[in-house]
Amino acid sequence: MSEAGARRKARSGGGAARRAERTAVNIETARFIERNIPNMELLGEEALQIIEHNAETVLEEIGVNFVNNPAALDRWREAGADITGERVRIPRGLARKLCGTAPSSFTQHARNPEKSVEIGGKNLVLAPVYGPPFVREGSVRRYATMADFEKFVKLGHMAKWLHHSGGTVCEPTDVPVNKRHLDMVAAHMTLTDKPFMGSVTEPSRAQDSVDMCKILFGEGFVAENTVMTSLININSPLTFDDTMMGALEVYAANMQAAIISPFIVGGAMAPVSVMGTLTQVLAEVLAGVAYSQLVRPGAPVIFGAFVTSIDMNSGAPTFGTPEASQILYGAGQLARRMNLPFRSGGGLCGSKLPDAQAAYETANTLNAALLGGVNFMLHACGWLEGGLVSSFEKFVMDADQLGALHKMAQGVAMDENAQAMDALREVGPGGHFLGCAHTQANFKSAFWRTEVLDYKPFETWEEEGARDTQALAAIRVEKLLAAYQQPALDPAIAEALAAFVARRKAEMPDAFV
Amino acid sequence: MSEAGARRKARSGGGAARRAERTAVNIETARFIERNIPNMELLGEEALQIIEHNAETVLEEIGVNFVNNPAALDRWREAGADITGERVRIPRGLARKLCGTAPSSFTQHARNPEKSVEIGGKNLVLAPVYGPPFVREGSVRRYATMADFEKFVKLGHMAKWLHHSGGTVCEPTDVPVNKRHLDMVAAHMTLTDKPFMGSVTEPSRAQDSVDMCKILFGEGFVAENTVMTSLININSPLTFDDTMMGALEVYAANMQAAIISPFIVGGAMAPVSVMGTLTQVLAEVLAGVAYSQLVRPGAPVIFGAFVTSIDMNSGAPTFGTPEASQILYGAGQLARRMNLPFRSGGGLCGSKLPDAQAAYETANTLNAALLGGVNFMLHACGWLEGGLVSSFEKFVMDADQLGALHKMAQGVAMDENAQAMDALREVGPGGHFLGCAHTQANFKSAFWRTEVLDYKPFETWEEEGARDTQALAAIRVEKLLAAYQQPALDPAIAEALAAFVARRKAEMPDAFV
Repeated sequence: MSEAGARRKARSGGGAARRAERTAVNIETARFIERNIPNMELLGEEALQIIEHNAETVLEEIGVNFVNNPAALDRWREAGADITGERVRIPRGLARKLCGTAPSSFTQHARNPEKSVEIGGKNLVLAPVYGPPFVREGSVRRYATMADFEKFVKLGHMAKWLHHSGGTVCEPTDVPVNKRHLDMVAAHMTLTDKPFMGSVTEPSRAQDSVDMCKILFGEGFVAENTVMTSLININSPLTFDDTMMGALEVYAANMQAAIISPFIVGGAMAPVSVMGTLTQVLAEVLAGVAYSQLVRPGAPVIFGAFVTSIDMNSGAPTFGTPEASQILYGAGQLARRMNLPFRSGGGLCGSKLPDAQAAYETANTLNAALLGGVNFMLHACGWLEGGLVSSFEKFVMDADQLGALHKMAQGVAMDENAQAMDALREVGPGGHFLGCAHTQANFKSAFWRTEVLDYKPFETWEEEGARDTQALAAIRVEKLLAAYQQPALDPAIAEALAAFVARRKAEMPDAFV
Repeated sequence: MSEAGARRKARSGGGAARRAERTAVNIETARFIERNIPNMELLGEEALQIIEHNAETVLEEIGVNFVNNPAALDRWREAGADITGERVRIPRGLARKLCGTAPSSFTQHARNPEKSVEIGGKNLVLAPVYGPPFVREGSVRRYATMADFEKFVKLGHMAKWLHHSGGTVCEPTDVPVNKRHLDMVAAHMTLTDKPFMGSVTEPSRAQDSVDMCKILFGEGFVAENTVMTSLININSPLTFDDTMMGALEVYAANMQAAIISPFIVGGAMAPVSVMGTLTQVLAEVLAGVAYSQLVRPGAPVIFGAFVTSIDMNSGAPTFGTPEASQILYGAGQLARRMNLPFRSGGGLCGSKLPDAQAAYETANTLNAALLGGVNFMLHACGWLEGGLVSSFEKFVMDADQLGALHKMAQGVAMDENAQAMDALREVGPGGHFLGCAHTQANFKSAFWRTEVLDYKPFETWEEEGARDTQALAAIRVEKLLAAYQQPALDPAIAEALAAFVARRKAEMPDAFV
């Protein structure tokens, strides 16, 4: 048991009732999803070929910009691209050929080996919301702090259906910009034993993340294994800035995984059409993944597609829309044709509250992501207000729905027990199945069970206060945080991590922009 | 213009502002969905063959009961089934052979020919909630009345994405049980010009529905065309009661369409397993559809599957669950193999409120129904609390989401304009697409637009009262009802319908059970 864990235990003392309630929560993490169902193939072969042809045309004729990055231009020149200023024009076929050294699947190790994940193939790994500067708790919306960050990491640790602790679950705005990555990475390393993401906001912060992993996992282990998956956004359209590319260079050089992800509000950063957007997505990913392989062939990368649609009246990004789903399905097909792991989807929504709008939009996206073959789903829970807000209630609401994805992905058992002919014979016309032998033998695993939603009789529900989903979720948040137990960590490692963070913080003056 | 419409117009008088607001709502009905996307085929060939084999075994060995219906037993005996008491055992292959005369697709005519629907093939026809005895409006939940019923029919008429007016949009509990079908059918006939459903609660009420259609459409037209699609529930497991079969007999004899639909709470009325439930569903539909063809070969029917899962703790039916989706996908595959139109899905949920739970569960089901090949979707909007409640707010919330289904089903355009290569060339790296020629030419139709959900900036939204989806929906309900205009109907027909209803009511004493 870790120190903090021991403290927690000592502090909790007395109260048998409190202990009983705490033990009622089961701390368990499901294995990542291994789909036993087919993918939805929305686009036909002809459409896919057109997109692939056009994406190559974009790379060859229009090209991409690598900004403030002479070394990148050198790498591209050497590989055979045509360089004019910062513009990189890539001859047809070259980027795709370079992408060929990227692995189709890779293991991201967790410090608890049981929680390591395999990203690629038919698998789906779920990670929480990433990036919001605000949090919402009930009716309060405010800037996020490091205390909020830690609460989210704890909720993620307690979430059975979440395989990954994520990265910037919210922006801890009370910590200097140039130091918060240290606290964030340390929190993921110490408050949970699930896998996590590294910092990408500066190359030096990516290097700090790698160095901290060497402390946590051991230097030898990190040299030979992937222990982080980090988010490298492309500055769409067709622009690769030096900050993100610098972080990518650090991670690729260290064989740490990167999601190469266009970040597109459709109609603003890409054409308004699905085909046009997919063409741009593919061109950008081809260029980005190819570049990762120029840095280090074999570096693990993920084909990312974060694409929202837009409200043409207000310019607001919109989520859970049919166009976003179509792009997700198409991008998944393109990723599979490149034999790369695919990142998209999430519990995305534009709503300000964890209300019906939030849930419609989220469910639309979660369903598309499951059926569209996503391998790594960031933002799987907790995302609110177009990514401006991390919501505690929505975190546990979405995390509950992730259980439904697990069950759906199992597919349909077809063995003799599943065929249930004995039950049909036993019960017969007009009978009732609740008491039959087959039901008794199978009911425990037959149906997915929510931990949040309400299935009570109307009268009971009304007596208990006629609570909506948000109110029920708030109760679950409290329950999970009360039951949280910190996973054990070698005290020497914890100390070394803390010392590293303290030293790095002391080396820099605080910066707030 | 109809009388009621003229009255409404006269009454509304003055208020330019009020007129302006009214005209802001566009009364338009979308054409039924013609899918241009592939279906999700969840089960493999082997699983489907096992289910088909087992369903035939159920019919042959266990059989089905036709209760209080000697004529049905005679029909089955004559067709070659083995009859013992009320048990009908159907030799392997016989039911499927009999089903062969049912059409794979049929037209249901509306009195406005532009609103007629084609049920089958790749089409999807959307109809509202059916059956609830309660309504919810804001925080009030109460027994439904005929006034509520009429409000729902008006909302359905105003709903662009709803193709069908449905049937019992709520139970008008203030009208005697034995007379309310007359008022309900009359409301569908006069308050909207969309297609509708007939009564099934007694054979005589089915006959009343047919007779009223003869007044509305003309006797000759009804003799040769399908003008109603009605809901015939099977009393699962494996039981066909005389009320529902009596109604089916009336409709089939008159070539009016019937949905032959098992009504199953999984684990209670069917085995707890997906394969077992699908086996029972198929056996029941085979028997029911075969029976319709014994009554009249060629009668239009729909393969129905209304299947929920169950909370094994409370026994409550649960909605939007992975098991329900798996059954929907599988049942769709079975229906397509029988070459029959398929009914399933809907805006199903168990929540007491139109909150996040309602929306998660609804969206899960709507997505599965779209991808699972449903041809006729009852309960597409307005369903709340496991079907106990019709909700005004949820009606317009769900109806809005149905627009997203339309857009999704269109598939992805791949012509030169959709490829948007000119836009990519015009904008280039680092540019912005909002102002480019391609965006200007395409933005109006590029993205699905909500009429309910909130896309406003946070500050505006907060200033306007920080409204959740339910509050926004309540505003839309009022707006649509204020803008409602009754479609014109030949006054002679309206008079004849009213006279029929009055005569039939006078012929019977009121009954309240």
